[in-house]
Amino acid sequence: MHSPSLLPAHACLIVHGKDSPGIIAAVSALITRIGGNIVAFDQYSDDPRGGAYFQRVVFHRPDFAADRPQIEAEIAQTLAGFELEWSLTDQSVPKRMAILASKQDHCLLDLLWRHRRGDLPVSIPMVVSNHTATAEDVRSFGVPFFHVPSVPGPDKSASEAELLKLLVGNVDFVVLARYMQILSGDFLTKLGVPVINIHHSFLPAFIGAEPYKKAQQRGVKLIGATSHYVTTDLDEGPIIEQDTIRVTHADTVSELARRGADVERQVLSRAVLWHAQDRVIRHGNHTIVF
Amino acid sequence: MHSPSLLPAHACLIVHGKDSPGIIAAVSALITRIGGNIVAFDQYSDDPRGGAYFQRVVFHRPDFAADRPQIEAEIAQTLAGFELEWSLTDQSVPKRMAILASKQDHCLLDLLWRHRRGDLPVSIPMVVSNHTATAEDVRSFGVPFFHVPSVPGPDKSASEAELLKLLVGNVDFVVLARYMQILSGDFLTKLGVPVINIHHSFLPAFIGAEPYKKAQQRGVKLIGATSHYVTTDLDEGPIIEQDTIRVTHADTVSELARRGADVERQVLSRAVLWHAQDRVIRHGNHTIVF
Amino acid sequence: MHSPSLLPAHACLIVHGKDSPGIIAAVSALITRIGGNIVAFDQYSDDPRGGAYFQRVVFHRPDFAADRPQIEAEIAQTLAGFELEWSLTDQSVPKRMAILASKQDHCLLDLLWRHRRGDLPVSIPMVVSNHTATAEDVRSFGVPFFHVPSVPGPDKSASEAELLKLLVGNVDFVVLARYMQILSGDFLTKLGVPVINIHHSFLPAFIGAEPYKKAQQRGVKLIGATSHYVTTDLDEGPIIEQDTIRVTHADTVSELARRGADVERQVLSRAVLWHAQDRVIRHGNHTIVF
Amino acid sequence: MHSPSLLPAHACLIVHGKDSPGIIAAVSALITRIGGNIVAFDQYSDDPRGGAYFQRVVFHRPDFAADRPQIEAEIAQTLAGFELEWSLTDQSVPKRMAILASKQDHCLLDLLWRHRRGDLPVSIPMVVSNHTATAEDVRSFGVPFFHVPSVPGPDKSASEAELLKLLVGNVDFVVLARYMQILSGDFLTKLGVPVINIHHSFLPAFIGAEPYKKAQQRGVKLIGATSHYVTTDLDEGPIIEQDTIRVTHADTVSELARRGADVERQVLSRAVLWHAQDRVIRHGNHTIVF
Repeated sequence: MHSPSLLPAHACLIVHGKDSPGIIAAVSALITRIGGNIVAFDQYSDDPRGGAYFQRVVFHRPDFAADRPQIEAEIAQTLAGFELEWSLTDQSVPKRMAILASKQDHCLLDLLWRHRRGDLPVSIPMVVSNHTATAEDVRSFGVPFFHVPSVPGPDKSASEAELLKLLVGNVDFVVLARYMQILSGDFLTKLGVPVINIHHSFLPAFIGAEPYKKAQQRGVKLIGATSHYVTTDLDEGPIIEQDTIRVTHADTVSELARRGADVERQVLSRAVLWHAQDRVIRHGNHTIVF
Repeated sequence: MHSPSLLPAHACLIVHGKDSPGIIAAVSALITRIGGNIVAFDQYSDDPRGGAYFQRVVFHRPDFAADRPQIEAEIAQTLAGFELEWSLTDQSVPKRMAILASKQDHCLLDLLWRHRRGDLPVSIPMVVSNHTATAEDVRSFGVPFFHVPSVPGPDKSASEAELLKLLVGNVDFVVLARYMQILSGDFLTKLGVPVINIHHSFLPAFIGAEPYKKAQQRGVKLIGATSHYVTTDLDEGPIIEQDTIRVTHADTVSELARRGADVERQVLSRAVLWHAQDRVIRHGNHTIVF
Repeated sequence: MHSPSLLPAHACLIVHGKDSPGIIAAVSALITRIGGNIVAFDQYSDDPRGGAYFQRVVFHRPDFAADRPQIEAEIAQTLAGFELEWSLTDQSVPKRMAILASKQDHCLLDLLWRHRRGDLPVSIPMVVSNHTATAEDVRSFGVPFFHVPSVPGPDKSASEAELLKLLVGNVDFVVLARYMQILSGDFLTKLGVPVINIHHSFLPAFIGAEPYKKAQQRGVKLIGATSHYVTTDLDEGPIIEQDTIRVTHADTVSELARRGADVERQVLSRAVLWHAQDRVIRHGNHTIVF
Repeated sequence: MHSPSLLPAHACLIVHGKDSPGIIAAVSALITRIGGNIVAFDQYSDDPRGGAYFQRVVFHRPDFAADRPQIEAEIAQTLAGFELEWSLTDQSVPKRMAILASKQDHCLLDLLWRHRRGDLPVSIPMVVSNHTATAEDVRSFGVPFFHVPSVPGPDKSASEAELLKLLVGNVDFVVLARYMQILSGDFLTKLGVPVINIHHSFLPAFIGAEPYKKAQQRGVKLIGATSHYVTTDLDEGPIIEQDTIRVTHADTVSELARRGADVERQVLSRAVLWHAQDRVIRHGNHTIVF
């Protein structure tokens, strides 16, 4: 699969941990030593005196894929002297993204369409929904569609098990595109890859169900959307991206939902793009977005 | 006091109550009958079948001030057949606005400066502060400054009584320009005029103290400000205006406060302008802003 | 065709012309007399002393369609005493919208998708393109697709004649969804219905071809999009809607085009919605948008 | 003069020129070698294969001021192998900023107020105006005010000579805060420091005089402001920052001016802050803003 956003022979090195002097010099000397040429470099420290340090370096290195083992060994050796974690990704390889959806199609179709246009450097091995309404649309994009109905009642283990059979090993991250089921902590653990959600409010305002109705009741003059990583605390995970638009007293709940749908798909698509480009680093309940 | 936003021989009629057919026809015929020419006309109904109805009409009427009693009698007679409340204001008369402030000067000075420029159709008979830091600045605008210290402890009755002596009868509304004291319900009742506050967050997110600190802890990607009418429920009054700006992981709490100050003064100045122009109608815990 | 935005038994009366006292009273009395109940009312005068006047009234009237002839006669009689033009539309009848497109699909698919969702109160009898790339996508929405190739060279009369055969009599307005051909004045005259275009810049900046390239060369910090009615003056017609987004020195021309596509489809969809709802009144080279 | 934005014992190194491998490694090793600790690091290359390269590094170095000569010698030696220009600034030393103004006070007072608040890391040795209207306000901030009247007619040499006597040697950059005189190329050459202007439109739309009038005539739905470095080509210099706000058909030219004033002062203050923090690098007719 070709995508203009994929970068042949490019790698991304993410480094984060305890800040200390000399990290930039060590990493940039390392890149030079392994024959790489830096094309993007971002860093952030929340406190230069021993705080948390974050760095993202994208570099071009001919034959990166073939020489990756030696390169990783060099990195490990170089960073051994620092209290840092690191990860290395091949920017020519698309991340495998599954989309979970329910009946609403706006976020789902927007992602599929952006992907087809070449605007998202991912592959989409599957869409899974607890409804069948979007099956035909999804398949018209050449993407497999699987139907996993939600079992009524509090016990989600049967449908979650079915989801896990489809997802585990086949995907690098999961996007909840207005998926209306709450995922259990057990599911998230077994899934083992990041899950990105879109919530239809400016979190932390209007946590929980029916945020547009709550927004209308409170009489707010802006509505928003929030994309965040999913954790076991509902609507409390690390925020990746947010945006708002102006509304008025005359907007009904359904008008807020209609207008909010535009914000939701914009915000979610930015969060997905940045995650796919390794621009987002999680730190506690925050994100650093380079 | 002259202000370009004041309109000689213009009046504003606000009508609100139960919606029923024929209100617009009745009111517009009335304006014609009393010799007025409509220059602005806004209406909103939250449900044409018996919902709540809101209307704002600005009209030009030569000799409005002199003939006001007859005009009011005509209005009362015309609207007697509807279940509506109404109010009439002379758009050539500035509302008297008191500003209450503490140490922070950004909202206070912004209002004083906009007023001097002629951008706010109000008069400012006084600024009252529980600190003296801004006294000289305020007086340089030709505005009286009064110092009413806050008495420590939960009993605010002494300082509130002193405030009431200054305000009651002398002002048409009060603006809290980052005034850091909570006003009691008893004070609000005795004051008897609208009070407009600026809260340094996008309400209902980050209600209460230190919203920028909370915003930083939650890792939001936008911060905001909210101007609302003050009620006895802290930070829960009807919202007049809100806005947000984009922030990043790199913004410290003090940076958020610095950048947020710009949003606060913009949002507050819009809310004050609209209130001064009789554009804001309260309805339950909402506002209609025409 | 059902659409939630269509309003059964509702009509929209647009009035514009020379301002004079008593128009609102006359029109609202008229609506009451014909048994209508006003649900939305907007007016604007660019000078109350003899300037241009604009008014939009949406009213509910049982049996509007059946009684339309009598209602129109009443309106004509009532407005005879004013120097005003008027038009009346049935809000339960969708306007017929043709879309003209080329290779790029973002604006085209966005309109088709919003329409399918019920967010645009129009019918779409056809999409016409000078390329075949989007044929399958268009037909998957159940919309007829016609291919009218562009004849190379300055003489567009053959392909314009073919377009006119398809469009005239079948559509109420035409949307150019990044259609890359310039339409002749002769074509516009023969077409006889409004044509809405989306231009990929904040007009009047970067008029003409390749605006994103020009924007990058000029080093702007924002890019935008403009939707306007098409006139014989290229990129000079009345503006309906505009918006901008923030960009940086690091955005390449293709990145500007990718990000600009989001603004284009947002701006165009708002312009189309407002036109479909009879919210836009043309006046000289301006629009009044209620 | 104390300012919270000034950073004791911090320096900023700006490097720009031809991109080539190893620059980041060389510079970061250099910073480590001279005993510095990097606190901010930004870089951009418009083409990693021999394009233009830009880098900004802020580092903490105890005794920076005292050891500056040796540090500069080290930098010169390290960078001798690259085709790069560089500059080094002491982040504990405020840049000296002169403000030139005319009658309008909104940009002028906003800068003075932000400076007094400690939000601009500059000193303000003088305000010069061709009018006296703002003298008292300026002096109330403790800033010297000089009056240099504009001589009528095309020959500006006398007043420009008087300006040069005040400015040359005393200031590090000049801000035109709605200064309504065009400066000659000869003046700019003799002045020899950067000049920042605020233009009251979204450039390149509405170049020249009376942009709000032109905007109203064109019927735009947004207005904007642009801050740029002044060159001999009027309104054509490198853009530092821009922003827009939404307007409607109902906004008169004076209303556009009133609302535009808020955008102007926001945009200008951001441009001044970024220039003061050495975040802006000029390159041809563009800027890189880190």
